Amino acid sequence: MVVGDDRLVREKVEQAVGVLGEEGIDVWVLLARESDVLGDPSLPFMVGTSVTWESAFILGTDGTRVAIVGTADVANVEATGAWPEVIGYVEGIAEPFRRTLERLDPATIAVNYSADNYMADGLTYGMWLNLQRWLEGTPYADRIVSGEPVVAKVRGRKSGEEQRRIAAAVATTVEIWDALTAWLRPGVTEREIAAFMHEGCDRRGIGTSWDRRYCPTVTAGPDSPIGHVEPTDIPLARGHLLSVDFGVLQDGYAFDMQRTFYVRREGETEPPAAVREAFAHVDRCIQLGAEALQPGVLGWRVDAVVRDYVAAHGLPEWRYALGHQLGRACHDGGALLGPRWERYGDQPLAPVERDQVFTLEIGLGVPEYGWLSLEEDVVVRDDGTEFLAPPQRALIMIG
Amino acid sequence: MVVGDDRLVREKVEQAVGVLGEEGIDVWVLLARESDVLGDPSLPFMVGTSVTWESAFILGTDGTRVAIVGTADVANVEATGAWPEVIGYVEGIAEPFRRTLERLDPATIAVNYSADNYMADGLTYGMWLNLQRWLEGTPYADRIVSGEPVVAKVRGRKSGEEQRRIAAAVATTVEIWDALTAWLRPGVTEREIAAFMHEGCDRRGIGTSWDRRYCPTVTAGPDSPIGHVEPTDIPLARGHLLSVDFGVLQDGYAFDMQRTFYVRREGETEPPAAVREAFAHVDRCIQLGAEALQPGVLGWRVDAVVRDYVAAHGLPEWRYALGHQLGRACHDGGALLGPRWERYGDQPLAPVERDQVFTLEIGLGVPEYGWLSLEEDVVVRDDGTEFLAPPQRALIMIG
Repeated sequence: MVVGDDRLVREKVEQAVGVLGEEGIDVWVLLARESDVLGDPSLPFMVGTSVTWESAFILGTDGTRVAIVGTADVANVEATGAWPEVIGYVEGIAEPFRRTLERLDPATIAVNYSADNYMADGLTYGMWLNLQRWLEGTPYADRIVSGEPVVAKVRGRKSGEEQRRIAAAVATTVEIWDALTAWLRPGVTEREIAAFMHEGCDRRGIGTSWDRRYCPTVTAGPDSPIGHVEPTDIPLARGHLLSVDFGVLQDGYAFDMQRTFYVRREGETEPPAAVREAFAHVDRCIQLGAEALQPGVLGWRVDAVVRDYVAAHGLPEWRYALGHQLGRACHDGGALLGPRWERYGDQPLAPVERDQVFTLEIGLGVPEYGWLSLEEDVVVRDDGTEFLAPPQRALIMIG
Repeated sequence: MVVGDDRLVREKVEQAVGVLGEEGIDVWVLLARESDVLGDPSLPFMVGTSVTWESAFILGTDGTRVAIVGTADVANVEATGAWPEVIGYVEGIAEPFRRTLERLDPATIAVNYSADNYMADGLTYGMWLNLQRWLEGTPYADRIVSGEPVVAKVRGRKSGEEQRRIAAAVATTVEIWDALTAWLRPGVTEREIAAFMHEGCDRRGIGTSWDRRYCPTVTAGPDSPIGHVEPTDIPLARGHLLSVDFGVLQDGYAFDMQRTFYVRREGETEPPAAVREAFAHVDRCIQLGAEALQPGVLGWRVDAVVRDYVAAHGLPEWRYALGHQLGRACHDGGALLGPRWERYGDQPLAPVERDQVFTLEIGLGVPEYGWLSLEEDVVVRDDGTEFLAPPQRALIMIG
């Protein structure tokens, strides 16, 4: 348990009660079993501990909080301090769960399933079938609605403790970037660069923001494969670009940045014109995205401002969203600054809210030089956005 | 990626093809998105890497292996070597998924949902809804069956590489137990005992088998709360029992053991009669369980042998299953040596198979002394069971 977890859960539970009111939902039910193996992504901030047997965490719009868990989990859940009423059962959850719903008699019951927002899709299909069975013969099965709007708001709006942790993750990530920048030299391989950054995480006892196999993602020169791919033995060569995508996971919060470096040829005092031109476009795209991002704007519109710029300048279209939310995960779900493609579902249609944290990212291939990409992170304020770390405004020259 | 992961995935994919034949299932489809956040528990051994966008891994009874993933995940999935055909998409998975099913035209399509086996319940309800949408207008939606029998067999039957890793996790756990035994003395608190064991894990760069907050679970004397609960500041006192539940997670495999110690009073050369008697019962229960456990027996019958012994001797009934499987998780799902209680669903009705690894665990309260419990781990062989570590056959005296 991280110091401050109690505070964090308290803040988020309070936020959630408010969101239930906004959404006109009577109760929100988080269901879980063996949550260390496969747990609803809302559990870490709504409960703050794991559970073993089938469990229900019932939060009411009036502030009611009831947990129903296997007896051996009772002390553990009580110890969180977030759930004042904890009901333990030995043989099965169905009966205490039904009895509790009868007592609360909610008109709407939100549970976490969502076609588009994976962070709001914490209920497995087997547990959905079990829920139907528990509610057989009651009026409650018909009162179930998707908890997606609740999750999107509670997860997206970063509380005070969450913003403190994100700021700390930012500071660490920047430290590791700075160390990398000082250490980089022609000849080091992609694999050595990844190892250097892993060492920076390990020494601090923190994790990588996503799968360590390809965090960092390192793309050196024009022949390196692009995407979620392990670093290769390709060495940094003069006249090539190096693009690195990296972030740390610290105290439960993830960060995500991309930086691009240029390895100077002998005698060069600045990158070649083609590289500078590409950088100017990518930089402009990031700034356009940051300017368009503010409370109330629909995510796809922010993406479209940049996609329109790219099309108008005859640049190749990049094949991912302009920005995703950051939080407990590197891809934190909910409102997305992305195109209205099938794979993104409804997420680009959500309005941006205050206190959400987004990436802004775009990359361009520069023939013969390599991949040029930037990813910056911003928090949405009442009057616009604020960069969480100083954005990269010029290519970093190496060698 | 752990050394040997390639071998492990190769072994498990091969096993799975055989199981599809046994179960008369044409194809098994693993679905995933953002699998670092919430991933089907079969992915680590069937794919061996994580994926970002909606992805399908289609395994045929004839050995066909097709992966359909977002373009940026293609290189990563190809690099596993386990999926010879990798189809990348940009905008959405529906069309390549439908086209692939039409090509394979399976009569039965297993997907991972299960009311009872959480390890076979890797499909979220939102993804289930998406799957229905992808298959609209095709005959395939009606051909879907639960992948539970496939998962139970593939997950349960430990391959060569898995057995090697479990043996290594056993050896490490025993090392840490031995160090603990040498270090224990009256006066140390539950919290200090947990810290000692965590230090043993951290020094080796390995994890705890379950949530570190209550792994180890430490129960010192009669006033310590029992169950999944954090260690307290209660010190080890003379004349008390100490029960510890602990295991390591090493190279992806988990172990789980309980040991009970008795803190000697001045002048005592053996534990008091009440304690010795309780130990003899618990020891007998473990031995009875191990004798009853063999290929083909139904899990609940093994539990019942011990539960009958406990009832016949007028002992208080313990409130959990006699044994669960071990593997990639401490509670690894599938066939369970447990009573036919609602909370265990169908799992106690499954027959035990060769190469499955089980715990055998039981505890008894001894008034005024504390909690006395043992947990041993066994692998099922053709002709019975084999203890993975020497079982505890006598109380360990401390002080």
